[in-house]
Amino acid sequence: MNLHPKQFVLASLALAFVTTASAGAFADEGMWLFNRPPRQILKERYNFEPTKEWLDHVQRASVRFNSGGSGSFISADGLVMTNHHVGADSLQKMGDAKHNYMKDGFYAKSRDEEKRCLDLELNVLQSIEDVTDRVMAAVKPGMTSEQAFVARRAVTNEIENESKQKTGLRSDVITLYQGGEYDLYRYKQYTDVRVVFAPEQQIAFYGGDPDNFEYPRYDLDCCFFRVYENGKPVQGQEYFKWSAHGAGDNELIFVSGNPGRTNRLDTVDALRYQRDIGYPYTLDRLYRNEVMLTAWGARSDENARKARELLFGVANSRKARDGGLAGLLDPAVFAQKREAEKQLRAAVEHHSEMQATASAWDRIAEAQKVRAHLLHQYTALEQRGGAGFASTLFQIARELVRAADEKAKPERERLREFTEASRSSLELQLFSEEPIYKDFEIIKLTNSLTWLSSQLLSDRKLLKQVMADKSPLDRATELVQNCKLESVELRKKLYEGGKTAVDASNDPMILLARLVDPASRAVRKQIESQVDEVERQAYGQIAKAKYELEGKNTYPDATFTLRLAFGTVKGYEEQGKHIPFETHFAGLYQRAEEHHDKEPFDLPKRWVERKYKLDLNTPFNFVATADIIGGNSGSPVINKEAEIVGLIFDGNIQSLVLDFLYTDKEARAVSVHSLALTEALRKVYDAGALADEITGSH
Amino acid sequence: MNLHPKQFVLASLALAFVTTASAGAFADEGMWLFNRPPRQILKERYNFEPTKEWLDHVQRASVRFNSGGSGSFISADGLVMTNHHVGADSLQKMGDAKHNYMKDGFYAKSRDEEKRCLDLELNVLQSIEDVTDRVMAAVKPGMTSEQAFVARRAVTNEIENESKQKTGLRSDVITLYQGGEYDLYRYKQYTDVRVVFAPEQQIAFYGGDPDNFEYPRYDLDCCFFRVYENGKPVQGQEYFKWSAHGAGDNELIFVSGNPGRTNRLDTVDALRYQRDIGYPYTLDRLYRNEVMLTAWGARSDENARKARELLFGVANSRKARDGGLAGLLDPAVFAQKREAEKQLRAAVEHHSEMQATASAWDRIAEAQKVRAHLLHQYTALEQRGGAGFASTLFQIARELVRAADEKAKPERERLREFTEASRSSLELQLFSEEPIYKDFEIIKLTNSLTWLSSQLLSDRKLLKQVMADKSPLDRATELVQNCKLESVELRKKLYEGGKTAVDASNDPMILLARLVDPASRAVRKQIESQVDEVERQAYGQIAKAKYELEGKNTYPDATFTLRLAFGTVKGYEEQGKHIPFETHFAGLYQRAEEHHDKEPFDLPKRWVERKYKLDLNTPFNFVATADIIGGNSGSPVINKEAEIVGLIFDGNIQSLVLDFLYTDKEARAVSVHSLALTEALRKVYDAGALADEITGSH
Repeated sequence: MNLHPKQFVLASLALAFVTTASAGAFADEGMWLFNRPPRQILKERYNFEPTKEWLDHVQRASVRFNSGGSGSFISADGLVMTNHHVGADSLQKMGDAKHNYMKDGFYAKSRDEEKRCLDLELNVLQSIEDVTDRVMAAVKPGMTSEQAFVARRAVTNEIENESKQKTGLRSDVITLYQGGEYDLYRYKQYTDVRVVFAPEQQIAFYGGDPDNFEYPRYDLDCCFFRVYENGKPVQGQEYFKWSAHGAGDNELIFVSGNPGRTNRLDTVDALRYQRDIGYPYTLDRLYRNEVMLTAWGARSDENARKARELLFGVANSRKARDGGLAGLLDPAVFAQKREAEKQLRAAVEHHSEMQATASAWDRIAEAQKVRAHLLHQYTALEQRGGAGFASTLFQIARELVRAADEKAKPERERLREFTEASRSSLELQLFSEEPIYKDFEIIKLTNSLTWLSSQLLSDRKLLKQVMADKSPLDRATELVQNCKLESVELRKKLYEGGKTAVDASNDPMILLARLVDPASRAVRKQIESQVDEVERQAYGQIAKAKYELEGKNTYPDATFTLRLAFGTVKGYEEQGKHIPFETHFAGLYQRAEEHHDKEPFDLPKRWVERKYKLDLNTPFNFVATADIIGGNSGSPVINKEAEIVGLIFDGNIQSLVLDFLYTDKEARAVSVHSLALTEALRKVYDAGALADEITGSH
Repeated sequence: MNLHPKQFVLASLALAFVTTASAGAFADEGMWLFNRPPRQILKERYNFEPTKEWLDHVQRASVRFNSGGSGSFISADGLVMTNHHVGADSLQKMGDAKHNYMKDGFYAKSRDEEKRCLDLELNVLQSIEDVTDRVMAAVKPGMTSEQAFVARRAVTNEIENESKQKTGLRSDVITLYQGGEYDLYRYKQYTDVRVVFAPEQQIAFYGGDPDNFEYPRYDLDCCFFRVYENGKPVQGQEYFKWSAHGAGDNELIFVSGNPGRTNRLDTVDALRYQRDIGYPYTLDRLYRNEVMLTAWGARSDENARKARELLFGVANSRKARDGGLAGLLDPAVFAQKREAEKQLRAAVEHHSEMQATASAWDRIAEAQKVRAHLLHQYTALEQRGGAGFASTLFQIARELVRAADEKAKPERERLREFTEASRSSLELQLFSEEPIYKDFEIIKLTNSLTWLSSQLLSDRKLLKQVMADKSPLDRATELVQNCKLESVELRKKLYEGGKTAVDASNDPMILLARLVDPASRAVRKQIESQVDEVERQAYGQIAKAKYELEGKNTYPDATFTLRLAFGTVKGYEEQGKHIPFETHFAGLYQRAEEHHDKEPFDLPKRWVERKYKLDLNTPFNFVATADIIGGNSGSPVINKEAEIVGLIFDGNIQSLVLDFLYTDKEARAVSVHSLALTEALRKVYDAGALADEITGSH
């Protein structure tokens, strides 16, 4: 630490904060940036010094699934490994009334049989560039927060477009430390991605919702894709080698992936908002959607197939949020946060140079009030594409309406998702041949319009126009039945025709999207300028103060960008009971028996038939102390030699508090053991060729 | 109608209101009072004139299940018929780890084997007495609404206690027409009730949640009990004879039962409150509880058994409320209500004698604002025993704490449920040997404390005390584990020891109940005086105006008291498709096949094995236009000769709007056909003796 003498007292004051909420030289904490790896900690704690080559190799062999998840290259021929639940979106979309790949699994015995995904985009991080100064310089002193937001968006769009034009790479400006730093991430984009292998969801998600986020576990949560370029498997791509032994007890391991979002640097007021308002509100909606999807799915096999992936996602989010809220409602967690904040604020107040920072916490508290005030409207109209309009057709209509409006504006002023730099990702989604089921659309839209009716009480006029004097069911039926946007050709015509074409359309979904758009943009603007921008400035100041007091050896909250975590393979104590670090195939069969083969503990037919072939002592799942969170799903677990030893697929219940702070007491990351993968491929799925490719035996 | 000339215009103005929202001489509308039967309508429409004897007989052969439901005496030996889902509470409570009567069913082949219910109370209505004048007289002009509430409660308690002492009968003062009339209902109470027969829940609730509130249906939703007095089957009780043929197409039928609650006389503002706030709020909690119970139940068979009945109840309420909300969100329903109210208000305003009534609608509107303001706190702390404390042990603790406090007060001032008149019902519940599962208690309490944490934001101090600086899980675990109230002996000791004993107890649940009670009573008092009493007065005035304008030939909203409905057995048109009035056993087997015998469409083993014995042409379920609602479950369906032709168990989806207005376009009551009951008893369950007793063949 480079502190001059008068800061000495402050530094020791802040020490408790450091060990509990950020760096932590004595714990396996951290979702570290690849351009700022935890060298010192790794050296002191594990006597390991990653070289630049090691880091570059790991970075480039790691993959981001743009649909939400992580993965890794594991062969010279572009083979990519991830979780079944990360691949599920693609599997769901390629199914039809005769093919249920989610339920039955998939295996392409030859390259010809590999099935191209409809709209999957993979990203591979190529470089990181610090653009903090340029972004910060755009915001001038004295600007209102609205002006500041516009200026910041303008420079961000500009940087991204410049980079995209110069390099051809996907270019994203990432906000780190909640606004303390801005980095430009450049990615290679892959859009020709084909499914090679997926097991039955039954074994991938063995134990279903009851076992989700639990341990011990018995899940083969894997899915393999192959990346193509110019019609051929991509060549020359960095990839991970396969370990001969897999993960062992007490071994140092690394996880390279894209954790989605954490709130560890949030102020106490921001956490209080989440605890009292944000989480309960989101959970209410998740509960509602889970009941609706379950009930509709139960009506027929075909309904169940259509609703499968969405239901999994909703139930998964619900259980994760439930666990997160349990963490927030633990007074010990809050006390720790309060104490750390108190110390940091005291330190800031004693430091004359940081006077402007002193009010940062109060500004963030004020922003939470605005957020609470706008919550219903913002969620209903704008967030997640407008949660009040849960219809794929509506999402398409909205994209078309907005694309037309945004295209007419200068680059700098566009909404972030409609810039030139974002165009290819946008078009991939917009022109996806994803099947759209009108019955499913109607049920989702009826449900969300019903919900909307209690959310828009502050704008009854808009609500009345949205409902067009009909009940939710009648309105949803009319909108979906008369909408023609399931035709990709029509979407292309409207998109290329721009504002003139969209304005001329009388497709009911287009009309609805146009009706809602002014209010939706207005509330987005309020959130962006009165909440996001206020927070960015205030957190930027707090982050700067923390650097100065604690040194720069910290990691930012997760932002769905590539991070390196590390940890030790090890079990834990739970209510006085020791939970061993790994499970075995034998345990799977035992669990099925204990539950009388009853759903969701029943086994796929193959697993029953091939039991005799399997080495039942094969390690199946294991746990480690690495610091991961949602978005890390599908991340490779590697050893010091950067060889694959496992595949992250979950965290245990105790790990759900990691949203807010790290602990390794009971919290663990849960992985599929690498040996389970190859053993199952060879013995259960007759996929020896695939196993050979992975292990490099061919 | 007895209107003098200047009222003539008003009467015709009000006519639209009459036909759409109340009497309805041209439809099978109405949940009629037994002391004010729809003689004129029955005569005009069906040429049927029920005699006093007919009405008395039907009234006394009808049974109210105090746990929530209806039933009927059907043999000279005290046999009572109701629905499986009405009997479920008793079946659930008598189960244990080795006996799952809900799942497996039950049949007592001899009287010895009949199993006594732990806390079931049946009521048989003996007499009705109009006490309106006495109740009204207690409220003096100029009283504040708080004073009025206290005075009204005092006189009500007084009337009930006088009657109870004089007759020994359970005596309830019922508020009718939302406060327009007060009647004293006297019931014979039976508490020695034994289970005779219940089928498997799988066939009683065939089709599960997907088919709930749907039609066509294939459910054997029945349960038979026997009422004992002095250790012997009750004798001399009126009972219904069994029809030889059962319900036929286009036949006039009657339903005698206890509809729970309707809102047909609610003002538009009161309905708007329900639509925008009340229903969505309740639904959020139901969704949450359904997900929690489903997830916990899925973890093991034993969890599923423990949660079974509660989960059914929650899912059932959720679907009913969902349907009710769909009705409220139908602008056509609201338009009808608005128009009727407009006409009535115009009529009242043109009538100089009714000036005091003119403000009634605005007073009700104001009361809705208070209701909305108190909603979270009232629901969390007081409603349903305090929804924030979903634990049987807490409910017991609260009853003990309150009983001790109330016992010390004069009768007139006691809370309604703690008067002498209510004592036997209270004690039956309080000293029930119902099994209490600590793991289930912990999970329910953790869930509700988590919910509570977002509901009590206006009283953080109380919330902090409730949580005692622990997380919901830790707090729930500590409360449940250290509570000793599962001992009925301890409960009796505390109950008999009164305030001294309760104050001296340091049982954690007793301490919690005492902690919460002041705030809970305070919000109850606010609701009672600022909402309930205001509404009672205002609706009383509106009801009076309606009588004068429309005549007294109307029925009040449902109040879970005995009503007579009538209607015709007939099918309907749905989306252009004709739905026949009845289904047959053959359809059951067909439906199971269509769904590949997958849950909840699979058949109990017995039904598979005995298929060959059954006459597959036996009518199974049928529909009729009778005006019923929740609470009518288990009601006998009888013909003109007062013979049983069916057993009400459901309404179709279209009937859920009946909360707010009657329609016979598609709305139908759904019943088990009487022939299905006897055929199944004889052929599937080898219960010929029971069938003989029912049909009087022995």
